[in-house]
Amino acid sequence: MLQIDIKSDIEIAQDAKLKPIKKIVSKLGLSEDDIELYGKYKAKLTYETIEGLKKNKDGKVILVTSINPTPAGEGKSTVTVGLGDALTKLGKKALIAIREPSLGPTMGIKGGATGGGYAQVLPMEEINLHFTGDFHAITTANNALAALIDNHIHQGNEMQIDTRRIVWKRSLDLNDRALRQVVVGLGGPSQGVPREDGFDITVASEIMAVLCLATDLLDLKRRLSQMVVAYNLHKEPVTVKDLGVEGALTLLLKDALRPNIVQTIEHTPAFVHGGPFANIAHGCNSVMATNAAIKLADYIVTEGGFGADLGAEKFLHIKTRAANFKPEAVVIVATIRALKMHGGQKKADLHMENIKALQGGLQNLQKHIETIQAFGLPYVVAINRFVSDTNEEVMELMNWCKKHEYPVALTDVWAKGGEGGIELAEKLLEVINKSEGQFNYLYSLDLPIDEKIRRIVQKVYGGKDVEFSGKAMKQLADFERFGWGQLPVCMAKTQYSLSDDPQQLGRPENFTIHVRELKPKIGAGFIVALTGDVMTMPGLPKKPAANLMDVDECGKAKGLF
Amino acid sequence: MLQIDIKSDIEIAQDAKLKPIKKIVSKLGLSEDDIELYGKYKAKLTYETIEGLKKNKDGKVILVTSINPTPAGEGKSTVTVGLGDALTKLGKKALIAIREPSLGPTMGIKGGATGGGYAQVLPMEEINLHFTGDFHAITTANNALAALIDNHIHQGNEMQIDTRRIVWKRSLDLNDRALRQVVVGLGGPSQGVPREDGFDITVASEIMAVLCLATDLLDLKRRLSQMVVAYNLHKEPVTVKDLGVEGALTLLLKDALRPNIVQTIEHTPAFVHGGPFANIAHGCNSVMATNAAIKLADYIVTEGGFGADLGAEKFLHIKTRAANFKPEAVVIVATIRALKMHGGQKKADLHMENIKALQGGLQNLQKHIETIQAFGLPYVVAINRFVSDTNEEVMELMNWCKKHEYPVALTDVWAKGGEGGIELAEKLLEVINKSEGQFNYLYSLDLPIDEKIRRIVQKVYGGKDVEFSGKAMKQLADFERFGWGQLPVCMAKTQYSLSDDPQQLGRPENFTIHVRELKPKIGAGFIVALTGDVMTMPGLPKKPAANLMDVDECGKAKGLF
Repeated sequence: MLQIDIKSDIEIAQDAKLKPIKKIVSKLGLSEDDIELYGKYKAKLTYETIEGLKKNKDGKVILVTSINPTPAGEGKSTVTVGLGDALTKLGKKALIAIREPSLGPTMGIKGGATGGGYAQVLPMEEINLHFTGDFHAITTANNALAALIDNHIHQGNEMQIDTRRIVWKRSLDLNDRALRQVVVGLGGPSQGVPREDGFDITVASEIMAVLCLATDLLDLKRRLSQMVVAYNLHKEPVTVKDLGVEGALTLLLKDALRPNIVQTIEHTPAFVHGGPFANIAHGCNSVMATNAAIKLADYIVTEGGFGADLGAEKFLHIKTRAANFKPEAVVIVATIRALKMHGGQKKADLHMENIKALQGGLQNLQKHIETIQAFGLPYVVAINRFVSDTNEEVMELMNWCKKHEYPVALTDVWAKGGEGGIELAEKLLEVINKSEGQFNYLYSLDLPIDEKIRRIVQKVYGGKDVEFSGKAMKQLADFERFGWGQLPVCMAKTQYSLSDDPQQLGRPENFTIHVRELKPKIGAGFIVALTGDVMTMPGLPKKPAANLMDVDECGKAKGLF
Repeated sequence: MLQIDIKSDIEIAQDAKLKPIKKIVSKLGLSEDDIELYGKYKAKLTYETIEGLKKNKDGKVILVTSINPTPAGEGKSTVTVGLGDALTKLGKKALIAIREPSLGPTMGIKGGATGGGYAQVLPMEEINLHFTGDFHAITTANNALAALIDNHIHQGNEMQIDTRRIVWKRSLDLNDRALRQVVVGLGGPSQGVPREDGFDITVASEIMAVLCLATDLLDLKRRLSQMVVAYNLHKEPVTVKDLGVEGALTLLLKDALRPNIVQTIEHTPAFVHGGPFANIAHGCNSVMATNAAIKLADYIVTEGGFGADLGAEKFLHIKTRAANFKPEAVVIVATIRALKMHGGQKKADLHMENIKALQGGLQNLQKHIETIQAFGLPYVVAINRFVSDTNEEVMELMNWCKKHEYPVALTDVWAKGGEGGIELAEKLLEVINKSEGQFNYLYSLDLPIDEKIRRIVQKVYGGKDVEFSGKAMKQLADFERFGWGQLPVCMAKTQYSLSDDPQQLGRPENFTIHVRELKPKIGAGFIVALTGDVMTMPGLPKKPAANLMDVDECGKAKGLF
């Protein structure tokens, strides 16, 4: 194996020289009065600024997605950041718009969510910890609502809420398996009404999805008011509006809704705002940030969680509908290592050349390319290069793309920052200029819920059909009756496979997707279709990263990954 | 009754014209580089700035305390803010240092914690909601620790923690009675180990007390490492240090430890930082803020929670020892209304003149004056005037003070701001100049824990003796054995009476205080003595304030009290 003396992400981040954020925003034509500072290097846009942007013309939105993720890693966030830097290097007015990371996993086994190497957003430690407090505001609103529900029941339960059918869970932005299933309200008549409950990690809260899909404060309040928190004894939904607390929840979220602006190592401005789960939610940064970015830059580089079957599909069907914009192009990130895993190579052997495994894995990439083509969007395949990739492997992949006339570019942004993304940026500008395509949805909102799910399974996953459990069948009927039939669908499926079986790598065919249960997220504005067990509260490992974390006497962080 | 068209606290606050906080700190000799902005009107000191202050000379600390509180209200925070404004009006370099309010009660029935009327700190809505995120950081650290404890047990429980003897509770900054007693870890072997648990409101977390007593980041880490979280099967204490996560907790708190600076309506600078419960903790703002204030101003006006029996006693015995300063003088706030309640008048009749009830209630004030005299400190009685007070009542009180040679001043800061506190400020400067007293503690740390408690009961409460339950007796022995005997005591007693019976108003005598149980707060550095039931997680009322809260489309808060 090649031994190189390389710096860790936190070392690179801490060695980087940041510019005051008021200088960074001046590149976007904004002054110090347009932002509220959170320290010298973080800021939020003011509502006045956002309002004032509406007259500006629209920039072009570029979505970064990937093949189905594997334990080998794809580097989607890293490519997103690096592409923003590369476009800036080419003289374009570019803005990056990505999600905020959750604090919880930082204490466990951290997977960096702020890019990596020389393609990172900064200040890395602060973004990974409390940042500007958005997630804490969401946790507070989530749990204030839970307390208000339990208080309503304790104070007489006028709405006849069925304590066995409360669907609103509490939340914390932590990994804490002991809180997955709890009993609350113990201790006698003055301590509330006993019932089963549970905690989700904050990024799984519907309020996170609501905040990320709202277009302004009034839309936020409207969405919050529609959230279903429970069913009453007549099995009718009880909403936040019924409790009359949508104003209080909106007040708690008034600052969290405003986009955060930071910078990359190369000083490209970046919105880092909102972070809904990519499995039970839609997995994209906020509409507020993306819509502001569209008015501030010519090129907006953003991403969706997981592979194109989940992230891009939800971005294109859910987010663009809520935000009311059309994307311009897609970048599909792939790595030689991950493709080899899709072709059957074991993780331990990934450093060894294996052309055959690579060839076998290409079909996964191919399916995602076909999906993006079906949406009518131009795209570029970005090969995110790792040091262990051999020239033969890279040539094999490049030649395969050329043979099929798939636009392709090599990237090396981890090691080289924006410079390593120039080829990708140039190729991207080329496909955008040449594009004659017309973006179209793969399902219409008028279709019944089950038919929308079937369209996704057939057109995006390449499956044969969808099968609904008895419970799901009953829910389909209920949901139409409650007037929720017009909502888009948010699939909760394993990210590892195009099918609902995480073992089926590559490009499985002729499979059926099994929908076990539906979850109405009426505030977020989608119906979640669960196709398996979805973990909404992670646990900590035997040796938590928390044991390595520290801070020196001046406040400098240590042990963050 | 007198009918006056008066504005509410939030209306007065929102009508006030704030100055940029960078202008406010310039009065203290600080530049924009000495602070980190959180928006235009809130800031935190940087660690470099705090370090640089050490060479400055010390200002004089003035503690504002009161008689035993009654439902009639005393207005201690309001007098604190108004006195700071008044000293400024007299040309003194003054700084206010008070606690941050808890968000939880805002959703229930709000008791303003940022002063009132024209003696408020601003921006009121933000200070009452998320402010600079300090409490969220404490909640996160508190619950990260809980998750790490449960994870340790789940992963094999190497330290043999007794799951029946985990004393570390989870916390939320909300009023939520349903979380007082819970069972966690349900759902089978992959969901943790089932056990009884509970949530406290964040201000009751030991981490809040630790943060408020720490003198710097290293002291914070030292204190965190000493916190007792559980006992093992051999009944020996298990600490944060044993878990090895004091670095991670300190990292989570690195910004929360830095003092927040805001302004009053009259633009006097004010530190608003930290907010430990005044019953099971010591109830004062942070040592970091007070110590920085001492180096930045000539007069520092601060307060302790509840009456002088709790707030002043803990401020003088616990906080001044941790912070290593000597206070200069004390202001004892009293209202005619509250004194009449201590003299037997009912709350509904407080608007009616009642000289006899007033005379009867004066003994409560007298006891607190005697206590402050025993500490060797000069003082002024501040009569916080209400519109319903009659001239005869006011004269009666003034004459009584003059007869006993108690320095006294009328204040009207709610209606008049600093102008209404001039008489108090002048009287205060006079007693400070004339003072020949020598501040002394009423107990020495060398005394055994039970004897320290006895001294407080006899010298501060005016009681006869103290009685310990069997459990408390056993704990006294254990605590000495664990090496905790040298710590000061933090009394958890009803705030309404000098005794442990909330019905005993005025000046009860010959009573015995009953200590039911002790709680070791080794990180905070004190032993809590519980003399009755202490509520550490409030509930919401039948009609929560949350139902009235709202925000307009520009982010302006409505319905906050």
